[in-house]
Amino acid sequence: MPDSRPQTRLLSADDVQLIAQRVGLDRLMDEMIGRLTQAFLEFDNHNTVVPIRSGFNYRTPHVGLVEWMPLLQKTQQIVVKTVGYHPQNPELYGLPTVLSTISAYDPTSGRLLAVVDGTFLTALRTGAASAIASQYLAQPNSRTLGLVGAGAQAITQLHALSRRFDLKHVLVYDTDPVVMASFAERAAVLKLDLRIESAPLVQVTTAADILCTATSVDVEAGPVIPAQGLKPGLHINAVGADFPGKTEIPLSVLEQSLVCPDFYEQALLEGECQQFEDRSQIGPELFELVKSPAAYKAHQQQMTVFDSTGFALEDQTAMNLMLAYADELGLGTWMALESVAADVKNPYSFVPGTVGSNSVVTGA
Amino acid sequence: MPDSRPQTRLLSADDVQLIAQRVGLDRLMDEMIGRLTQAFLEFDNHNTVVPIRSGFNYRTPHVGLVEWMPLLQKTQQIVVKTVGYHPQNPELYGLPTVLSTISAYDPTSGRLLAVVDGTFLTALRTGAASAIASQYLAQPNSRTLGLVGAGAQAITQLHALSRRFDLKHVLVYDTDPVVMASFAERAAVLKLDLRIESAPLVQVTTAADILCTATSVDVEAGPVIPAQGLKPGLHINAVGADFPGKTEIPLSVLEQSLVCPDFYEQALLEGECQQFEDRSQIGPELFELVKSPAAYKAHQQQMTVFDSTGFALEDQTAMNLMLAYADELGLGTWMALESVAADVKNPYSFVPGTVGSNSVVTGA
Repeated sequence: MPDSRPQTRLLSADDVQLIAQRVGLDRLMDEMIGRLTQAFLEFDNHNTVVPIRSGFNYRTPHVGLVEWMPLLQKTQQIVVKTVGYHPQNPELYGLPTVLSTISAYDPTSGRLLAVVDGTFLTALRTGAASAIASQYLAQPNSRTLGLVGAGAQAITQLHALSRRFDLKHVLVYDTDPVVMASFAERAAVLKLDLRIESAPLVQVTTAADILCTATSVDVEAGPVIPAQGLKPGLHINAVGADFPGKTEIPLSVLEQSLVCPDFYEQALLEGECQQFEDRSQIGPELFELVKSPAAYKAHQQQMTVFDSTGFALEDQTAMNLMLAYADELGLGTWMALESVAADVKNPYSFVPGTVGSNSVVTGA
Repeated sequence: MPDSRPQTRLLSADDVQLIAQRVGLDRLMDEMIGRLTQAFLEFDNHNTVVPIRSGFNYRTPHVGLVEWMPLLQKTQQIVVKTVGYHPQNPELYGLPTVLSTISAYDPTSGRLLAVVDGTFLTALRTGAASAIASQYLAQPNSRTLGLVGAGAQAITQLHALSRRFDLKHVLVYDTDPVVMASFAERAAVLKLDLRIESAPLVQVTTAADILCTATSVDVEAGPVIPAQGLKPGLHINAVGADFPGKTEIPLSVLEQSLVCPDFYEQALLEGECQQFEDRSQIGPELFELVKSPAAYKAHQQQMTVFDSTGFALEDQTAMNLMLAYADELGLGTWMALESVAADVKNPYSFVPGTVGSNSVVTGA
């Protein structure tokens, strides 16, 4: 069949990994941070519609959820990320906790333009968002990073922050001693010139200039850090809270802090912000911070929290970055995934011998 | 890279078309009707959760929408159909009005198991649903089918109904004379022994024993059929209404009829049922009809309407039918679409030279 039919571009796990290898992790993260900053600067919620994600969550056979995060950039692009969160995956199946694909559609025709592996990109963009928030909210001379939760997300948090701060010291805590102990080894790929140490929780939280919480704490089992002894200028990237009832940061800490959600409405449902009864205590969204940094600069000397629940604009930016590199490097698989019958008014027009409605039927 | 990694099965347009060719259209439609009847019989809304679809709709650059239709069959399968409806596609891009893909996820891990072309399947299952509704609500000896709207959906409506009724005569009306005139030619693939004729709208609606409306009527521009002169035992499959404000059937006809929606909550928002102020006028859902046919048999002699808005259970059934045939025929493409890092706790573990956390590091 001649393939003038519209094709969907598929970027597999291999394609995304090849891009990361060829571009290099540092340049990739820098580009992700740069493009995401630009996307926040240009963000206009009249032209870009981001509904709250929805999905299924369940407790059987294991705790988990599958959600979809849609975005419409009017007349330009529709992006839907599907993301699964199944905290028992590593133990039960040797799979990552988070699995994801990101799809792009053309809003002029509805065509599926691309499906891209979103697992790696979710980690990458979550790191980049924390780096951006920290750049506007943390003390610029922050040297000590605390990591509470040392799983997959902690690697990209460290990586992203190391691209924007001159970090000297990383203190790591995880409830799982094996995960805690392996962190330095896993982070070795970043080739960072800094000291990485496991430490008791209190030591991590009290020494940190910047703290990232990225745990799989159970619903209603939070918070995961103590409220006492935090540095007065501490900035926290609260990455783990992404589910009703799941929180990592004590309410008293939130109440003393400027709390910036990535996405206000979603943070109220799933983020740290769900702890606030009084919404007026919630600060600006991240994009407002990026647009008006002077207005919030004084907060760098005070306690601040980035309430990161995951924002479809981040996924759109990550996907488009990958698609641009796939173009440059000639990667990806093209597939005619959607039937486009020879005759659009006849779903059966692929059947051999079918007379198309545009054909001329000659008389016998 | 050794591929013990989990793979996603892709069934492209070619795969789906090959299945249809090898299985044959009649057998495929019969199986679709049979499996869907079974799915309705087994449907249990405690174990199968079907949220109302959501999506984006817009008027620029053209009228259109992209929606997702999710279904969770607890512990078994998650299915999300994405479907675009862009009525100007044929004219502007030579593409079908409806474009779609259907994705299946494993709710134990969140893995994306399959992505299947949904364009053809949407037409197939919509036809099958009308055949089932007609079987329970139309007069068994119905001989004359009326089609209002002669586009792609009309072909599968005719096909499905011809598998359950001994149709002798098909009367076709479309506002577009070219589409109306080409219908018989397009339907030739079905090799049906019956007479197909174009006719004025009133002739179609007054002669029909069963009527299918499948139009792209504009929002607020309906109804598309006159209320007068309908046969007292007429059954209508109202297929076109799938959008707020879009309706095809006059309210007075609905008020005289037993109206069965495929999916009550959605029909209230997008179907013919949105015309009812009094919900108590709405009849059973299709699955209730299938489960208790005796309770509704008397209605075959009266006017009845199947309010077909599209139900994710139909899409799940269609997708699983295709996947079963793909197994049998060895079709489809397997692709590692989701990154599964060698070390699930390290999103960068694909980088050459990265030390996995489970590796043994030997001392120097």
